[in-house]
Amino acid sequence: MNQMNDSINNLNTPCVLVLDSVVRNNCIRMNERAASLGVNIRPHMKTHKTIEIGKYQFENNKNSNQSRGIIVSTLSEGKFFSKEFKDILYATPIAPNKVRDAYQLHLSIDRLNIMFDNIEHLNSMVEYLKKNPNEFQKKWSVFLKVDCGYHRAGADPKLQSTTDLIELIINGDYKEYFQFQGIYSHSGHSYKCQTPMDIKKLAMEEARVTGDYAKKLRSLGYKVDTVSIGSTPVCSHLPDDLLSEYGVNEIHPGNYTFYDQMQYELGNCKIEDIGVHVLATIVSVYPERNELLVDAGSLALSSDPGCTHLRDLKVINNFGIVHNDTNLRIVAPSQEVSKIQSTNQSPIDFSKYKIGTKIRIIPNHSCLTAAMFSDFYVINKDNQIINSFKPNKHW
Amino acid sequence: MNQMNDSINNLNTPCVLVLDSVVRNNCIRMNERAASLGVNIRPHMKTHKTIEIGKYQFENNKNSNQSRGIIVSTLSEGKFFSKEFKDILYATPIAPNKVRDAYQLHLSIDRLNIMFDNIEHLNSMVEYLKKNPNEFQKKWSVFLKVDCGYHRAGADPKLQSTTDLIELIINGDYKEYFQFQGIYSHSGHSYKCQTPMDIKKLAMEEARVTGDYAKKLRSLGYKVDTVSIGSTPVCSHLPDDLLSEYGVNEIHPGNYTFYDQMQYELGNCKIEDIGVHVLATIVSVYPERNELLVDAGSLALSSDPGCTHLRDLKVINNFGIVHNDTNLRIVAPSQEVSKIQSTNQSPIDFSKYKIGTKIRIIPNHSCLTAAMFSDFYVINKDNQIINSFKPNKHW
Repeated sequence: MNQMNDSINNLNTPCVLVLDSVVRNNCIRMNERAASLGVNIRPHMKTHKTIEIGKYQFENNKNSNQSRGIIVSTLSEGKFFSKEFKDILYATPIAPNKVRDAYQLHLSIDRLNIMFDNIEHLNSMVEYLKKNPNEFQKKWSVFLKVDCGYHRAGADPKLQSTTDLIELIINGDYKEYFQFQGIYSHSGHSYKCQTPMDIKKLAMEEARVTGDYAKKLRSLGYKVDTVSIGSTPVCSHLPDDLLSEYGVNEIHPGNYTFYDQMQYELGNCKIEDIGVHVLATIVSVYPERNELLVDAGSLALSSDPGCTHLRDLKVINNFGIVHNDTNLRIVAPSQEVSKIQSTNQSPIDFSKYKIGTKIRIIPNHSCLTAAMFSDFYVINKDNQIINSFKPNKHW
Repeated sequence: MNQMNDSINNLNTPCVLVLDSVVRNNCIRMNERAASLGVNIRPHMKTHKTIEIGKYQFENNKNSNQSRGIIVSTLSEGKFFSKEFKDILYATPIAPNKVRDAYQLHLSIDRLNIMFDNIEHLNSMVEYLKKNPNEFQKKWSVFLKVDCGYHRAGADPKLQSTTDLIELIINGDYKEYFQFQGIYSHSGHSYKCQTPMDIKKLAMEEARVTGDYAKKLRSLGYKVDTVSIGSTPVCSHLPDDLLSEYGVNEIHPGNYTFYDQMQYELGNCKIEDIGVHVLATIVSVYPERNELLVDAGSLALSSDPGCTHLRDLKVINNFGIVHNDTNLRIVAPSQEVSKIQSTNQSPIDFSKYKIGTKIRIIPNHSCLTAAMFSDFYVINKDNQIINSFKPNKHW
């Protein structure tokens, strides 16, 4: 990379900056939190999709589980991270057309854990092994996805049909094909909370629903090694007795590596904890309407509107804020440009913000923003470029 | 491409399908419209970012302008399309840090037309030539961006300072550095219209504002070769006397190659005119809450909420609809998965939509959706893959 050790001022815009020490500190803090709770951490890779930050997520990790288990959101990510990590959980219910690739990946590492919430997932995995008996070298490793109230994916733990799936793979017709690892829930509805107190309540609710179901399964004689809950908001507000009271022994946050404006608005991080900024250039100025135009639009920032439910009407149109001048916000992103307005209509300082001035934008949703770029410029505290990371792309 | 001539059933999902004959017909129809109005068409490349569809945009083009002028949204696109097109308009006001690259591109083709709406744009271009006199081989070719009411970019045609810029480059101190090509406006506010009648009014308004300013400039003795207006909605509702009455001699639509759900909702196309679908796989089903889960989330569809102002409360959460079953809509996209619900809560046919079933999603905003992919699978009317196009990526 010819721009290494150079300052960010020479970068082509828009581009994405990763704040190295901020990201590493975010990782260390989450690892310390998990250690203090006495639970394992299985970090999600989807936010950054880089091997390097995947490694950061295990720095200072007091995790006794030496397998360094991770989570990915696509099989493409699974293959990408298998170079470094050998215990991977593919956290989307598996489609039949992905079974072959999934099994090949499973054979190539310690284990690719598959998520299921419907008997059809199990059927297609068994069918594959029956059709390809020569390939059958080890059991599928599986997690049951439990719906803890988010109602996106997951089986309802209150239904007998859910427990029937566990019986089927532990004692039933499918027992020779599966190694049951445990249960997993994701509290995505935490992003709709109003206050940190609401998130705390939701964390307890997720721990209770998922933990109680694990207790029930154990009382029925099933072995449940892992009881995993998560989402970055919930993992920021976990009850102290997570393991002793709820029986939850693993957490799986992801966004915490970068955080973003949404997490800040929800009260899960400080603004200086946000580890990814988009560098943009002011391409025109409009003093007559108190606005700036920058060269970062929806394809650099994403169109995620963020936590609109937390904002008053004056700031509801807010697709990012300007670093060190958070009164300035991105509004109405087009494909390649966005407007910048001041929140309270206070006059923008046009002697400071001129055509050509570079600004750093704090994005609403760092997972989506980071995914827009093929190169991450990694900077130190002096804004020197110290590294370049290449994220996994596509599917 | 090993999947060529194969059916789409074998494609990895999510992926993007380009409907070849639909796209070509969209291009031909827009070219016929421009020809019937007696105006030039300078198509935008940003929606598809492929050389191949760029060529489609000139099929059956009765345009007497043999330069085959196009528009791009980034300099990266400009370089990419310069392999095929030699008259390119870079439609974002130029930042000083892009002046060098822009001039090199300008030298390498017939002309790279630069957009300006502020004297600082002109200053940085002149400064570059003064600092690099050996490179000064031809004048900059420039368009004035006029604000026709959208208030994103563009100089206010009512201000004397705007006309002063024209004087500066035609007769003033900067005349040796610039070739003035004409004026350009973009009616992005057409996407906020309620009805086709509103769009028609806005088309007349844009034509009037931009056309009147051209007339004013000509009355002051300035030569204005090109008077260009656009946006796909406006170009779908142009007045018949665009040239004779308003003096507008060029249109510059872009999205019309693909169209999308937004254009359909606005009344600018029929649903069968939409030329890009996202192929996705159902990864789980939830009959108990009448929902499906598919493997296409925000990173496949974008998070653009579409024309929410046109929808009733029941369909406001709608990030795409299912092809051939438009009652089914994408709601609440996460990074890699979305839920599908039926609009009127009618029961989903779970015998038709099973785990593993492939569906085609009509996206809200095709410009953003297409940009999420590195390969376009081009299909014929029999859903056979007949080609693969690689769009330009990044900046």
